[in-house]
Amino acid sequence: MALEQVLQRIDSDRDAALERLLALLRIPSISTDPAFAGDVDRAADWLVDDLRSLGASVEKHATPRHPMVTGQIGEGAPHLLFYGHYDVQPVDPLNLWTRDPFDPAVEDTPNGPVIRGRGTSDDKGQLMTFVEACRAWIAAHGALPCRISFLFEGEEEIGSPSLVPFMEGHREMLTADLALICDTGMFDPETPAITTMLRGLMGEELIIRGPDRDLHSGMYGGAARNPIQVLAKILAALHDETGRITVPGFYDGVTELPEEIRAQWEALGFDGEGYLGAVGLSEPAGEAGRSVLEQIWARPTCEINGISGGYTGEGFKTVLPAEARAKVSFRLVGTQDPHAIRKSFRAMVEGMLPPDCTVEFIGHSTGTASVMPTDDPAFEAARKALSDEWPREAAFAGSGGSIPIAGHFERILGMPSMLIGFSREDDGLHSPNEKYDLEAFQKGTRSWARVLAALSQG
Amino acid sequence: MALEQVLQRIDSDRDAALERLLALLRIPSISTDPAFAGDVDRAADWLVDDLRSLGASVEKHATPRHPMVTGQIGEGAPHLLFYGHYDVQPVDPLNLWTRDPFDPAVEDTPNGPVIRGRGTSDDKGQLMTFVEACRAWIAAHGALPCRISFLFEGEEEIGSPSLVPFMEGHREMLTADLALICDTGMFDPETPAITTMLRGLMGEELIIRGPDRDLHSGMYGGAARNPIQVLAKILAALHDETGRITVPGFYDGVTELPEEIRAQWEALGFDGEGYLGAVGLSEPAGEAGRSVLEQIWARPTCEINGISGGYTGEGFKTVLPAEARAKVSFRLVGTQDPHAIRKSFRAMVEGMLPPDCTVEFIGHSTGTASVMPTDDPAFEAARKALSDEWPREAAFAGSGGSIPIAGHFERILGMPSMLIGFSREDDGLHSPNEKYDLEAFQKGTRSWARVLAALSQG
Repeated sequence: MALEQVLQRIDSDRDAALERLLALLRIPSISTDPAFAGDVDRAADWLVDDLRSLGASVEKHATPRHPMVTGQIGEGAPHLLFYGHYDVQPVDPLNLWTRDPFDPAVEDTPNGPVIRGRGTSDDKGQLMTFVEACRAWIAAHGALPCRISFLFEGEEEIGSPSLVPFMEGHREMLTADLALICDTGMFDPETPAITTMLRGLMGEELIIRGPDRDLHSGMYGGAARNPIQVLAKILAALHDETGRITVPGFYDGVTELPEEIRAQWEALGFDGEGYLGAVGLSEPAGEAGRSVLEQIWARPTCEINGISGGYTGEGFKTVLPAEARAKVSFRLVGTQDPHAIRKSFRAMVEGMLPPDCTVEFIGHSTGTASVMPTDDPAFEAARKALSDEWPREAAFAGSGGSIPIAGHFERILGMPSMLIGFSREDDGLHSPNEKYDLEAFQKGTRSWARVLAALSQG
Repeated sequence: MALEQVLQRIDSDRDAALERLLALLRIPSISTDPAFAGDVDRAADWLVDDLRSLGASVEKHATPRHPMVTGQIGEGAPHLLFYGHYDVQPVDPLNLWTRDPFDPAVEDTPNGPVIRGRGTSDDKGQLMTFVEACRAWIAAHGALPCRISFLFEGEEEIGSPSLVPFMEGHREMLTADLALICDTGMFDPETPAITTMLRGLMGEELIIRGPDRDLHSGMYGGAARNPIQVLAKILAALHDETGRITVPGFYDGVTELPEEIRAQWEALGFDGEGYLGAVGLSEPAGEAGRSVLEQIWARPTCEINGISGGYTGEGFKTVLPAEARAKVSFRLVGTQDPHAIRKSFRAMVEGMLPPDCTVEFIGHSTGTASVMPTDDPAFEAARKALSDEWPREAAFAGSGGSIPIAGHFERILGMPSMLIGFSREDDGLHSPNEKYDLEAFQKGTRSWARVLAALSQG
């Protein structure tokens, strides 16, 4: 069987695959810090060379910041576009690392060997699982089982400023039947996941202004409008007593979870109590009557992410401030329209303003939720393929976070995304001592070989 | 008539009185900055010498920071204790001053001549109005019309850390029939005021804690308790829709304004619209159905002075923070008990805490309101005396702010205070280009001569 030879090749090539990953990890491609711009470029070049060694036709594209790397290889159907990013987060605080973040190595831990270093899990290690699967396929059979394009980005950790323009400028090159994205995690170390629901995001900053200067609360308190108080009333009104969000029309486009997904999630045996207990909480705080998993993966939210106003230093100052600010974000699901919600939110706030108060809004990121077409047979095929590799059956999972790339593929290129990744909750993404389990790297590579086989058969 | 000779002496001694004040103003007695400790001491010595030149028996008392100056002079009844402070605020930002703050001089302005310099109005110029009145009385008659004690403090601008212990250690020396305090203002440039109602103050800082660390709002939003949201609900509940404060028992001890005071205040023709308009507001925001003057002078308040939580920098960060904080202060009137209100406030907050939230309270300053015994004939006598000096009749005024010294005199020494001062709203206390109108200094001195005559006759 064709797949079996590929898996054998992956197993026999393990040490060399690890060496290749370590070489890529040694390049400190920190995208946010201009001092490392040369290193980011070097990582792009490393990928160009590596893809060329597979026989791909590869290009490095300059952008205003860091380059995009694209590659094309293989023939036949389907045409898959694989996305990963080769830039990494900064390493501060460096003193919390147990080793040089850019001198990666395999370390033994009580949970097994891990590859320790910046970018191991986010996202170089994940990216290379797919590349290694392709390499093994070619080594075993001389060719890939279908047509594959690669898109490697060097700006993911700085908000992907060049991504949308690049997609818009290279539609033909990038459009495929399906995008594969390797930047997510397993449900747990035994249960792989295809992330099929990603929440969208809409951020708003509001600045409530009252008096035209800071006032002494003795001289004016009781007569002058206090913007902090006005802001507190507005923020307090955003949820009702059942945890529902009160912005008019907010729930338009929110649908109940399909029964089969609900059953699958229940089968996962998610430990909501343990999830909250790990951060010092005991009771779900969101919408009443919803499980923690549903609250996080499938329900929209409104969170206050920051608030400030008046005197916030040590001690006390009896100021009645001229303004108060808050940052509020909405996580969106289903077909909720971030623009309509922004408009409704602003109208609601304006409607609550007392006399003499004004509000300024600063709009932050907007992204619609992504709901993948799990009724497309490719999804079920990939799920079965993953289930073959791991101890437990793979799940169609949700994700509370927002991964804008999937939305861009859908919106700009009209192409669905399949998010498969092998990182674990304790990988320490963006933190000191980031790691990627050696098992995740090796079985991740094998997983992709299986998924390629499954999709190509389909 | 005895008073007439004193007033003549004051008028003929004007230039010399101004020179004395300028000499005191030249000493940069900034109490908060240790670099100026020697200057604060020099200002104390200057006052020691000046009081001695009147014939008073004077002492300089060391404290852990800056000295107290006390003096005794005169005989007969009543025994009056005069309080003022000789320390001043820092002068930053120096570049906003039109002259060296410690090179004071008389400058002509469209509203008449002013003495410009740090401390002119707060409080050296005010303090010297009383000293010059005493000097003129002695010059005219060889003696004061009653017994007078002086208490000059060098720590008022740093919160008077030594004042209460000093009072407690010198009860006998300091206790008199009535305290006179010259650290307040006129109602307007034509209308003198005796401040007879001072609001008290109770400050509370509250820290609401939820999860045991900052969380990612994508990963936890919708399931984890958000402390900012909890705080907003609590703060929003502190006032009802009519502006009344909802803390149980809060209004215990709040009485309606006596009819004669209400009539007097109405006669003042206070321009509430103009008062608010000057700071960009148009409508009183406090308790419904109360005038601006009543809201500021005679009603208790609850103000949020500061709030912070989560990410407050530029841009956006989707954090669900571990804690949120606010500083809340209550201005108190009548016989409201700050300790009882603190207790009730804390119980109310604790009662509103949802599961998994804790609150920490940090108690800040407490001071009861002061309501002066205006039915004591001395108050009416002083009011008449002031009315004789100025174009318009003097008022018994309120003050929204809190002047702790009056409360200390009442509580520790069992002595009422009479607050008479001549500063104007545009004096720029604590700000660059502080000034004191030359008229305030000269007519203020004459006013004290009249008040001394009136109280001694009484």
